[in-house]
Amino acid sequence: MIDFSSDTQTRPTRAMREAVLDAETGDERHDACPTTLDLNRRVAALFGMEAAVFLPSGTMCNEIAIAVHTRPGDEVICARESHIIFAESGGPAALSGVMMHPLDAERGLFTPDQVAAALRPPSSFAPRSRLLVTEQTSNLGGGAVWPVDQLNAVARTARDHGLAAHLDGARVLNASVATGVPAADYARHHDSAWLAFTKGLGCPVGAVLAGSAQFIRDAWLLKRRWGGAMRQTGVLTAMCLHALDHHVDRLADDHAMARDLGADLAAAPIVKRVLPVETNIVVAELADSAPDADTVCARLRERGVKVGRIGRRKLRLLTHLDASVDDARAAVAAVQGLTVEA
Amino acid sequence: MIDFSSDTQTRPTRAMREAVLDAETGDERHDACPTTLDLNRRVAALFGMEAAVFLPSGTMCNEIAIAVHTRPGDEVICARESHIIFAESGGPAALSGVMMHPLDAERGLFTPDQVAAALRPPSSFAPRSRLLVTEQTSNLGGGAVWPVDQLNAVARTARDHGLAAHLDGARVLNASVATGVPAADYARHHDSAWLAFTKGLGCPVGAVLAGSAQFIRDAWLLKRRWGGAMRQTGVLTAMCLHALDHHVDRLADDHAMARDLGADLAAAPIVKRVLPVETNIVVAELADSAPDADTVCARLRERGVKVGRIGRRKLRLLTHLDASVDDARAAVAAVQGLTVEA
Amino acid sequence: MIDFSSDTQTRPTRAMREAVLDAETGDERHDACPTTLDLNRRVAALFGMEAAVFLPSGTMCNEIAIAVHTRPGDEVICARESHIIFAESGGPAALSGVMMHPLDAERGLFTPDQVAAALRPPSSFAPRSRLLVTEQTSNLGGGAVWPVDQLNAVARTARDHGLAAHLDGARVLNASVATGVPAADYARHHDSAWLAFTKGLGCPVGAVLAGSAQFIRDAWLLKRRWGGAMRQTGVLTAMCLHALDHHVDRLADDHAMARDLGADLAAAPIVKRVLPVETNIVVAELADSAPDADTVCARLRERGVKVGRIGRRKLRLLTHLDASVDDARAAVAAVQGLTVEA
Amino acid sequence: MIDFSSDTQTRPTRAMREAVLDAETGDERHDACPTTLDLNRRVAALFGMEAAVFLPSGTMCNEIAIAVHTRPGDEVICARESHIIFAESGGPAALSGVMMHPLDAERGLFTPDQVAAALRPPSSFAPRSRLLVTEQTSNLGGGAVWPVDQLNAVARTARDHGLAAHLDGARVLNASVATGVPAADYARHHDSAWLAFTKGLGCPVGAVLAGSAQFIRDAWLLKRRWGGAMRQTGVLTAMCLHALDHHVDRLADDHAMARDLGADLAAAPIVKRVLPVETNIVVAELADSAPDADTVCARLRERGVKVGRIGRRKLRLLTHLDASVDDARAAVAAVQGLTVEA
Repeated sequence: MIDFSSDTQTRPTRAMREAVLDAETGDERHDACPTTLDLNRRVAALFGMEAAVFLPSGTMCNEIAIAVHTRPGDEVICARESHIIFAESGGPAALSGVMMHPLDAERGLFTPDQVAAALRPPSSFAPRSRLLVTEQTSNLGGGAVWPVDQLNAVARTARDHGLAAHLDGARVLNASVATGVPAADYARHHDSAWLAFTKGLGCPVGAVLAGSAQFIRDAWLLKRRWGGAMRQTGVLTAMCLHALDHHVDRLADDHAMARDLGADLAAAPIVKRVLPVETNIVVAELADSAPDADTVCARLRERGVKVGRIGRRKLRLLTHLDASVDDARAAVAAVQGLTVEA
Repeated sequence: MIDFSSDTQTRPTRAMREAVLDAETGDERHDACPTTLDLNRRVAALFGMEAAVFLPSGTMCNEIAIAVHTRPGDEVICARESHIIFAESGGPAALSGVMMHPLDAERGLFTPDQVAAALRPPSSFAPRSRLLVTEQTSNLGGGAVWPVDQLNAVARTARDHGLAAHLDGARVLNASVATGVPAADYARHHDSAWLAFTKGLGCPVGAVLAGSAQFIRDAWLLKRRWGGAMRQTGVLTAMCLHALDHHVDRLADDHAMARDLGADLAAAPIVKRVLPVETNIVVAELADSAPDADTVCARLRERGVKVGRIGRRKLRLLTHLDASVDDARAAVAAVQGLTVEA
Repeated sequence: MIDFSSDTQTRPTRAMREAVLDAETGDERHDACPTTLDLNRRVAALFGMEAAVFLPSGTMCNEIAIAVHTRPGDEVICARESHIIFAESGGPAALSGVMMHPLDAERGLFTPDQVAAALRPPSSFAPRSRLLVTEQTSNLGGGAVWPVDQLNAVARTARDHGLAAHLDGARVLNASVATGVPAADYARHHDSAWLAFTKGLGCPVGAVLAGSAQFIRDAWLLKRRWGGAMRQTGVLTAMCLHALDHHVDRLADDHAMARDLGADLAAAPIVKRVLPVETNIVVAELADSAPDADTVCARLRERGVKVGRIGRRKLRLLTHLDASVDDARAAVAAVQGLTVEA
Repeated sequence: MIDFSSDTQTRPTRAMREAVLDAETGDERHDACPTTLDLNRRVAALFGMEAAVFLPSGTMCNEIAIAVHTRPGDEVICARESHIIFAESGGPAALSGVMMHPLDAERGLFTPDQVAAALRPPSSFAPRSRLLVTEQTSNLGGGAVWPVDQLNAVARTARDHGLAAHLDGARVLNASVATGVPAADYARHHDSAWLAFTKGLGCPVGAVLAGSAQFIRDAWLLKRRWGGAMRQTGVLTAMCLHALDHHVDRLADDHAMARDLGADLAAAPIVKRVLPVETNIVVAELADSAPDADTVCARLRERGVKVGRIGRRKLRLLTHLDASVDDARAAVAAVQGLTVEA
C-alpha cells in the first residue's frame, strides 16, 4: 500500500534504530538521562527558549502548554481549524477547563486585528482571554506557512493584552526549511513552542516542548500526573537526535515532491483545484461532479493508494521520508484514473 | 437614577412580598416544599415537559443542563453571542469540560444547515458533537425572537444526529407574549428548557429548569453538589407563582415601550441605527462620529440615566416592570441631548 | 409528625417573614443590595474577618472555599466524618480536583500532632498538602465542640506548614452559645469560615462565607460561575438579619432540651449509650440486641416521630426552633416504648 | 554509585536494545503496529482479560483505569499507602474528580470486612462508592504479597456491591514468581489490571493495561486525549516482549538477594527491625536512637550507596536486574558501618 495519508506513518530507518544500541540512558524523572537532556537542550536552543521537556506525543505538548498557561474558565483564541480543536479529543476543555474562541481563518492564518477583536473586555462574568495558540505550519490549512512578521505580530498582540502565546510547531521545521527562517524567529513572542519528531523527521515516538525554566518546571508536574513521565527515554531520544542530525535538510525533498504532486493532481478530472503547496501537504478540492471524499478515498485504496480527507470535499496528501518518486507517480496515476462518475 | 441597563434590576412589589407571609414551606431537598413543587409543576407544564427543578439562578440552569447532557471533551454548538459563552464565567468548560463550537449567527439566530455543517463526523480524535444550545429570545441579538419553525428545525437537526438540545429560555415568555406562540411550542424538540423569574417577571431570585423525569433527577445531583440545594424555598417560589399569575401578560407593555424607545432613539444624532425591536430589548448602534459606548454610557449616567452596552459601538436598553413612560421619555431626552462631539 | 431529624427542617416564623415586607433590596451582583451588604458585614465582623459573601447554601460555602484555597491535585486534611466528605456529593474532588486525606478523629476532633503527621513532605510526585478543614461543631461527632485552644492549635499547625485553614462553622454559634467563646476566637488562625442560617437560626435559605477581601473577590468568581449569584437577595438576608437579632441566644434552649433528651434516651432499653451532649445534637448508640438503625427509625415514624441515623447502629436527634418540650417528651416516650425485640 | 533506591533505575541490556533493530513497526493509533499488538495480546492473556493497551507509564494505567471506571464525585476505596494516593501527583482527583477513601491497611493489605464497612449506603448527598483499587505487590507495604484468596475476596466484595475493581499490578509478576500463583488468578474478580515493564523486568519505557474489550476502547479515548497515544511503538514493545521472554523467571534472583539483604540489614546497629521480605523490596525500620531516614540516606550516599526512604524512620531498598551480589554486600557493609550516633 502506497501511503500519503500522513507523514506520521514512516517507519524508523536502520540507522535510526542503531542509534539505540549505544545510547546513554538514565531515569528522565530524575534528570538523569543524558541523551534526553541533550535533546531537550538542543530543542530549547532551536526555539531560543530556556528549557525543554521530552514528551510521548505532540498532543501532550499542546495540552500541557494549555494547562500551564491557563486557569479553568479562561478562553483560548486560535484558528477554527486548529489541531487543538479538531484532533485532541476535546482535551483543552476536558483537561484544562478552557473555553475555545475560534477565529475564522484563511488557510489557518489570521491577523492581529482578528486577535484584538476577539479579546474580551475585563468583566466579572465573561471568560478571561488568556492564551493565543498558533500553528506553524497550519495542518488543515494545507501546510500553509505563517509569514514570520504576521506570526510575530499576532503573538505580540496577544501578549500586549496580557495573554500568553503558544506555538504548535509540530511541523515548524518544514516551515524553516521552506523559507530559511529559523524556528527561533517563528517562536519569538511566544511563551512556549514544540516540535514533533514523528512527522517529517521520521521518528517512531516523541515531541519536545520548550519554554521558560519555570514553564518547564510546571509542565513536569502535569507530565507526571498525566502519566507522560517515563524512565530511560534515551532509547527514544537517541533516535530524535539522529533525526535532528540527518533528517532536517531532506524535508526540502518532501516539499519538492509535494509541489510536483500538487501540480499533477490539479490536472486530474476529479480535482477542481489544489491549494497552494508551500511545504509537504497537498490539499485537493474535489470537482463538484466528483463523488464525495470518502468515496474517492475508498476507490484509491482499492487501487493501492492511501490518502486522507478534510471534510467531505477535500483530499489531503502528505509527502514524507518513506514516500518515493515512484510512489508519487503511482498516486497521481490512481487519482487521474478516477472519473467523476467513479 | 433611571435604569434601563437590565430587566434584572427590578425590585419585588409589595404584593409579591406579601405572598411570602402565608406561603406554605418545607424542605425542597426532600421534595417537601409544596409551594416549590407547585411552581415546578407549572413550569414543567408550560414547557410541555415531565418535571422541573427550582434553582437559584439562570446560570445554574444552563450549567446544570450542559453538565447533564454532556461528558468532558464533548462539543456544544451555539450562537457565538450566546449567554453561555459571554456571561457565565467560562462555566461550560470549567464545570463540564466541554468544547465550544460557536456559529456566526444573525442576531443570535442560525439555520439547520449551519448546525449540520458544524457536526463533526464520528472520529477517534475529534470532540463528539453532543449538545445544541438555543436562546429564546436572543439577548445579545437584541431580543430577537426565533420563529418557531426555525427553532424547531435547528433542534430537530441536532436530535436527528444524536445530539441533545437545550433551550435557554431566560426570556422565552417575552417571545410568547410577543408572538402568541406558547413556550411549549418553542421548547418542542428540545430536551431541556428553563425560564428566568428575575427578568421581565420581576422576582428577586430564581429560575426553573425543566426536562424529562430522569434529566431532573440527574440535575438534582448537581444542584446538591454545586450548592444550589436550599431548604424552605417556598419563600422564594411563592413570589415566582405570584409573577406567573400577575406579571406575564404585562410583558406586552414592556414591548410597546421598547418599540417606542427604539423609534425615538433612532432619531438621535449619536445613533446610526436601531436594531428591529421585537420584545423588550433595544440595541442602538452608535453613529460613526459618536464617542465609544463606554463614554456615551458615562455621559448618560451623569444625566441620571443608566443604559448598557454591547462591545464598543452599541447601546443596549431593556424595558421592565420598574420603568415608567416618564422614565422612557427622560432616557430619550438624555440620548438626544448628546452631541456626536460629546 | 414530630421532627427531630434535623435542625434544618424549621419553618420561618411569622416575624421572620414580615421582615421581607420592608426589606431594602438591590442587585447583589453589583453590590447594590443594602440588606445583603449589611448581613455580610455583620458576619465578617462576627468572624473577625475582612469581608463576606451571601450564598444559597452551606455546601456552596464549603465548596467555594476549597476551590479558592487549592489547585487541582492538592490534598485536603480533615476528619473522616466531615460534612465535606459524607454530605456534599463528592464536591471537593468533582469541583476542585482535590484529594481527601481523612484523619481518624474522636467525635470529629483531632490533634495538632495528627495534622503534622498527615503533612506530605515536599515531593515531585506526592499531592501537595494544601488545606485543613475543621468543623465546629462536629455534626457526625454528635455536636461536639472543639475546645478553642485545640481548634486554634490545629489551624496554626496547618498554617505553620504553608496550608490554608477553613472553618466549616455551620453550627459555630451553637458552640459559642454553649461555651461563651466568640465565633471570632474559634475562627482565629483560619483563612475562611462560614455560618449557616438554615439550621439553629431557623431561616429558610442561606449561609455566609467570610475571609480576606481577596478571598471574597475570588469567591465571587465561583459564585457567578456555579450559578450562586442571585439578584435582590435582600428578601432572604432580611430574614437572616432577623435571626441574628432574635434567634441566637435562644440556642441555649435547644441545648438544654438536647441534654434532657440525651439523659432520657440513655435510659431506654434499646439504647446502649448516649454520646456526651454538648450542643443541640444527640447521638444514641443502639443496644447490641436492638434492631438496626433503619428499622428503629421506621418504627418511630409509625409512632409519629422522625429521627435520623448515623451508619447502622446510631440514632441522631437534633433540637431546634420548632421543637417543643412536648415534642421531646413524645419522642422519648416513643423510643422508650420500643423493645429490643421490636 | 550502587543503587538500591528503586527497581526502576535499571538500564536496558544489550540484548534488549538489539530487539529494536528488527522490530516490526506501524502506527499504534491505527492498531497497525504488529509488535505492540502482540505485546497487548500477551498481557491480556496473562491477566485472563479480553484486551489490553500499551501506555507510556504505569501512572497512566492507573489514572486511565480510574477515569474509565468512575464519574466525577464518585469514591475510590484503597489502602492508605496506595501508589495512586502518594505517588501520582493527585491524579485521581485532578483527572477524574474522584474522592479518596483510604483504608488503614496492614502492609498495604486489608480485608473484605474493611471494604464492606467503607461502602456508603445509597444516598442523594454522599459520594457513590464506585471503585476498589488493590496493589499487588504492595509497594509501601514492603513488597507484601496479597494471598490470592484475600485478594479475590476483597475484589468480590466490591463487585457484589456494584463497584468495579482495579488491580495495580505494577509488580504482580514479582508476586507470581514468589508464590507460583498466575497473574490471572490475582486479577480474577477485577475489571482491569496492569503490569509495569520498567521495574523488575528492566525495560526503559512502558506498561500495559488490560480489561474488557469495551474498557480498552474507552481507555483509548483517554490515551489520545491525555497525549499517551504514540506512533511506531514497536521500538518500545519489542523490548517489553524481550523482557517477558527473558526477565521474568530471574525475578527469583532479585527475591533471594532481597531476603539476604533483609537478614543482613536486620543485624545492623542502626536498624530496629526489617519487615518480612516476600519479594524484591526491603523495608528497614530505623532504631530509635538512629538519625532520621534523610540523614541516613545522605550518609549512605557519601559511601556510594543509594537507598530510598519511607516517611522519617524507614529505609527502602529494592533489588533488580542491575544489582549484583557484590553491590548487595557493599550496601550491607555501608549500613553496618553507620553508628547510631552517625
